[in-house]
Amino acid sequence: MWSFYDVCGKKLPPLLNACVRQILIGEKRGFGKMNTRDKILESALHLFDEKGYHQTSIQEISEGAGVSKGGFFHYFPSKNDILFALQESFCIDSHLNNIEKVALNDDLSPAEKLHKLIDYEVYTHVKNRPNVVIFYHGLKNLSEDKIKIIKEKRDRYEEIFRKVIRQGIERGDFKDDFDINIVSKALFGMCNWTYMWLDPEGPMTPGQISDTFSKLFIDGLHKKREA
Amino acid sequence: MWSFYDVCGKKLPPLLNACVRQILIGEKRGFGKMNTRDKILESALHLFDEKGYHQTSIQEISEGAGVSKGGFFHYFPSKNDILFALQESFCIDSHLNNIEKVALNDDLSPAEKLHKLIDYEVYTHVKNRPNVVIFYHGLKNLSEDKIKIIKEKRDRYEEIFRKVIRQGIERGDFKDDFDINIVSKALFGMCNWTYMWLDPEGPMTPGQISDTFSKLFIDGLHKKREA
Repeated sequence: MWSFYDVCGKKLPPLLNACVRQILIGEKRGFGKMNTRDKILESALHLFDEKGYHQTSIQEISEGAGVSKGGFFHYFPSKNDILFALQESFCIDSHLNNIEKVALNDDLSPAEKLHKLIDYEVYTHVKNRPNVVIFYHGLKNLSEDKIKIIKEKRDRYEEIFRKVIRQGIERGDFKDDFDINIVSKALFGMCNWTYMWLDPEGPMTPGQISDTFSKLFIDGLHKKREA
Repeated sequence: MWSFYDVCGKKLPPLLNACVRQILIGEKRGFGKMNTRDKILESALHLFDEKGYHQTSIQEISEGAGVSKGGFFHYFPSKNDILFALQESFCIDSHLNNIEKVALNDDLSPAEKLHKLIDYEVYTHVKNRPNVVIFYHGLKNLSEDKIKIIKEKRDRYEEIFRKVIRQGIERGDFKDDFDINIVSKALFGMCNWTYMWLDPEGPMTPGQISDTFSKLFIDGLHKKREA
């Protein structure tokens, strides 16, 4: 079973690593050739992460990106629009297409799909911690209409996982006496919580974590063999 | 299998509910006879939750508690000391003794203990959301020495869960090819994440959630019967 960590983790030389990450998971940063909009987003991302959203000024974001305040306002009407752009990008642009490809790959069984999705989920949370923190903690700072957009995209994301669990039930592989919503929330909790405790530089790799999670979770879902 | 929700949930009349909660889970608030220190903590808890730690002033906390600024400083040298008191109290005073009692109850099998502990964990996260938010998001605002104290207490808390999982392995009930640290982190992720999505006033009760979590998680841990 491949792991995103094994393919795009820190064992590769940085430039190759960045290339592989761009190809595999659509990551756009880290090439030194970012356009101005991306530089502003990158600067905001790290300032929001270090200082918090409310403690970060537009002046600081502009300075961090090496642009004037006029340059900032050319791309974003307000600080809140940057927060929304970061949320939307993390929520969907980089990830939704990738997990859809796994879910639609009919060469894989539902259990194999789930293993890959769990692996992707853990890898994403560990390797993109600043985005994750802003995604989970910053939602309350958006306006109602923007929260609605993010929640709809998040629901599409979660529905892909629920669909794979449903396929496993329909094939008779998984138990059918579970509430699929609760099962998928259990899966997201298990994977997403890694951003709270897993050190990307620590001894345990995201791949090791997701292998254990997958075994535990998929064994919990699988029908027991009769004694 | 009992549920904390069934015993102390919203179905009981408020006063009886508060009494049961105080007896069973050591909750101190909600009686209208709080001492001044607790009033200050309660005021800070709700302001930190609504406005965030940095956006809340000592003046506002004092006003919310109905005390003068002098009264505030009689109990807490700084705003940071309140944050620490809230963290410490949530982390240990209300909960550690309760889960230790479950872990030490030898009338229960390891699987039964785990079910009760998962139930307690979900109930705590859903019913004490403001404390939970401050506990998880506020740690970074404490000084290094205070973070160390909280982390040690949190480790004691987690060790109780790991101990029960170890008992299950030693009895031959649970598989022995899992890393217990990863397994316990999976459990905490699954349960703790509920504060992000479970509406205490929604149709699903904490008891229903924890029953599904327990079944999924404990089935995942249990040795399969041979075919």
